[in-house]
This record gives sequence, structure tokens and C-alpha cells, in this order.
Amino acid sequence: MKLATVRIDRDITRAVRLEGESLVDLGLADVDEVLRQPNWQEAAHSKNHGRYPLAQAEFAPLVSRPGKIICVGLNYRTHILEMGREIPSYPTLFSKYREALIGASDPILLPPESDAVDWEAELAVVVGAATRRATTAEASAAIAGFAVLNDVTMRDWQYRTPMWLQGKTWESSTPFGPYLVTPDELPGGVRPALDISCEVNGQIVQKTNTSDLVFPPVALIEYISTIVTLEPGDVIATGTPGGVGHARKPPVYLRAGDILTTRIAGLGHAVNPTIAEAGRS
Amino acid sequence: MKLATVRIDRDITRAVRLEGESLVDLGLADVDEVLRQPNWQEAAHSKNHGRYPLAQAEFAPLVSRPGKIICVGLNYRTHILEMGREIPSYPTLFSKYREALIGASDPILLPPESDAVDWEAELAVVVGAATRRATTAEASAAIAGFAVLNDVTMRDWQYRTPMWLQGKTWESSTPFGPYLVTPDELPGGVRPALDISCEVNGQIVQKTNTSDLVFPPVALIEYISTIVTLEPGDVIATGTPGGVGHARKPPVYLRAGDILTTRIAGLGHAVNPTIAEAGRS
Repeated sequence: MKLATVRIDRDITRAVRLEGESLVDLGLADVDEVLRQPNWQEAAHSKNHGRYPLAQAEFAPLVSRPGKIICVGLNYRTHILEMGREIPSYPTLFSKYREALIGASDPILLPPESDAVDWEAELAVVVGAATRRATTAEASAAIAGFAVLNDVTMRDWQYRTPMWLQGKTWESSTPFGPYLVTPDELPGGVRPALDISCEVNGQIVQKTNTSDLVFPPVALIEYISTIVTLEPGDVIATGTPGGVGHARKPPVYLRAGDILTTRIAGLGHAVNPTIAEAGRS
Repeated sequence: MKLATVRIDRDITRAVRLEGESLVDLGLADVDEVLRQPNWQEAAHSKNHGRYPLAQAEFAPLVSRPGKIICVGLNYRTHILEMGREIPSYPTLFSKYREALIGASDPILLPPESDAVDWEAELAVVVGAATRRATTAEASAAIAGFAVLNDVTMRDWQYRTPMWLQGKTWESSTPFGPYLVTPDELPGGVRPALDISCEVNGQIVQKTNTSDLVFPPVALIEYISTIVTLEPGDVIATGTPGGVGHARKPPVYLRAGDILTTRIAGLGHAVNPTIAEAGRS
């Protein structure tokens, strides 16, 4: 099953189920609301409040108001080893705020305050059940599905201080979607083995497979839920592989007019133009 | 004006205005909802849906569901200098999730997974107006008020990886309240100069004045709002002075049965017992 949040008017959204070339309206505002239903899978599967053509869909951020967005640092084995680092014992966690999220076709704003906006293609996990100190089985069952995310990062702000947050949460910078795919539709299920790539203006800059994750989705849910209850609609961005612009010599950053494409096999793709933001009016 | 969120039944809360020994019910669920009213100051000042005696009040976390909790790292000048460090050019920002918040008398849970739970008395700023790229005047006007917060930290988890988040956001660990005080009632107004202290079992372990902040509240709002829109109900925890248990030789951590008191002159105090949490059931 594929679910999305689409805009049907300026600030009005609807949760939809994708069926071929149609979107079936679930009668709810967003995927968040779907995931908070008791037996949400059944509700998402059966509800039908009308249809829209997929071709006209404008995807909003997949989850409108996630209670938590938890991001993971260096998490791709090949990339860690090629950098000469050791495989970490624990996942590095940080966060971003929901104001950063944009839809799969929305423009990424390049703020005048940064000269170093970089890409980070990531597999996102969307939580579908409340869980604390989850066992492996509970963690598996708590996964609603997977989606595309790009943890676009202002490198100059990321490295201003020891904590990365301020480079990670700029307004309207993080593509998230187009849609969520439930584990039953994916090779590997809750342990997805999917090709992931990032392109800038059609040129591939990152490319690997999600099976290379050091801390895969189920392990992340076990770990994070030790600390805090995960709730329906929470989002985990699982980290990015090698190939970011900041690590190139010389570094390469996004410029206004670039097109950033983030692709995960089976999860669709986000295609986001970048535009220069005006700054203080 | 003093505002709080109190529990009137198990999971039911009300926003109240403190008047002498009474709490005046504002007819809204929590302080978040008050701050989202147009002209919230007037609404908070005039509404009256009944009274409760203050003596019976059970304070909930001051804001129930802040959209963002933004925490600041080393931010007290004297403490930075005594540690032999340089005054930083930019504030170090990280976050915690709302599941960490507890009320001013609630127990702090000591999880079985940590052996190093430490205190961090802090001045919290509550945002009362949406603001982006705020000028100094706009940042000042965006401050709804100030409150007590203790950024209780699991040091072993904080230092497991380069990012502090996982030591900062344990469920039911962060006292927040009892109440918010608007700037007009405080010496210094939006630039508060208030004695702040932390006690463990009645013994003072931290003590300074908020005028020693390197990045005071108005500057923090200007800085953070450059990155992302601040919204009503957002919370900024402005950092802690010297005297934390982890820096002592040997280190001292909280043990079950300890009483943690966090006090800021004019903002009241939180008195939280610590209890050992059972862990996975």
C-alpha cells in the first residue's frame, strides 16, 4: 500500500491511497491522521471518499506534523570505511524541526545566510505504532512504512558549533516523500534492500543500497525507543551514504536553479528545484 | 501575569492565571492554547471560567506540546571562563523532544539504562508570537515569558556519540514550570537578571544570575529565527551554569530518592523527587 499527503488547495491537504493512476481520498487531513487511527492499515486500505487523478497531485510533506524527526549520523558501512573511520558502536542521533519539511516537488529554499547548502539522500522510516523499549518484533511491527527524504544541510552552519542542529533545520529545506510504502510491498520488508541515489541536474552524486546501513530501521527503533516513546507519525531519517558535496575537492554546493533528485527503488523520487530565498524583507 | 497548565484530572489539563492564592481557569486546555489566541495577553488577562485553590494545584509541564524545544549549550560566561574555554561566537544549539517534559512536582524517572543522571538548572524562554529573522525589537516582542526548567541529562548517553541528543531527551526527565511569568513582572524585563540555583536534597549545587548569559534570550530568538520560524509555544532552554555533577571529582549523579530543586527568583521553583524506573516490563 502507498499513502501520501497531497494538497488540494493552498493550505488544505488530504491523505490519499495510491491506486494505479488514481489517488483515493481517505477522508482525513494527512498521513499523520491516518496513522493515529486504531487499525490504521485497515482504515487506509478500505476508506474511499472520492478520487483524484495522480497526474495532478501536488505532494505535501508526507507527514504534516511529526511529533519527532530523529536523524542518524554516519550510518553507511562502505562510506565509514572509505573515510578510514571505525564502525560505531552506537547510532549518532540528532534532530530537525518540522518547519524544515517540504513536499516531493516543492522548491528547496537557499537562504542568503548560507553559502554551503549540500545534499544527503536518505531512507526515511515512518512510525505507525506507539512503542517504548521495543523488542525486535515490536520494533518491526511499529514500522508503518518507508519513504524518500533528503536531509539537505547548510554545512557552514552545521560546523559553526559542536552540535549539527543549526545546519540541519533550515525552513523549507528537507524534501520528504512523495509517498510512504508499507513494508509488505518492498524487497526485504522491514529490512529493505533498496537502491538509493541522489542526482544534481541529472548527474548521479550518491548511489548505494540501503542494505549497507550499519544500524538498519528495526535496530534504530529498538535503540531510540529505549530513550523515548516513539509515536505514530514520528520520522527517522536513517543517514546518508558517501558522495556529499562538502567532501569533494573542491567542495560542491547547491546553486539556485539546480534540480535535486532523490530516488529510492520502490519508493519513488523527489525532484526539487532550488531557489534563492530573499531573506529579511 | 503568571500562567500555568494544571491537571484537574488524570489526563485533563487547564490553562490558568495565578491570582494570589487562586488559579483562574482560562477555559483553555493549556498554555500552548492560550499563546495561540490572537492578542493572547488580553485573553489571558480577562478570561474567567472559575477558580481553583492554588494549594491543591498539580502543575503539568508548562507547555503541553511545544512544536520545538531548542536547547543551548555552554552559555554562562563565568563557567566558560573557569573551564578555560573561549567565549563562543555562536550559540551551540541542540534539541529535546516533548516526551521528556514533566511538571514542577512530578517525579524524574531514573532509567535502568543510565548510571549518570545529572542536573542542569536553566532559564526557559517561552515564545508568544510567530517570528522569522526577527529584529531585536521583534525578538523582544516575541517573548511570552520565562520559566524554570531543568535539562536533566544522562551523561553516559550524552557522550556515547558526538551528538548530545540521546542524553538529553529521556522520557519524563525534564522539569518545566511551575508557571510562566511575563517580562513586565521581572527585573530586567526581556533581559532578566535573576538569581538561579539548583539544589540536591537541599544542598546548593549550582548558583548564579541569568545576567551572566553569553547569548541572552533576545539574542537567541534573533539567532534561531534566522534559521527557522519560531512559533507560539516554542521553548528555548538557555543553558546551565557551572556546578553540574559530571564535572565534580569524583562525579556525582542523582540517585533514587534524591530531591532536585530548581529555583529562579521571581519564577518560583520546581521540586522533583527522583525515582528508579522499572525498565522493560
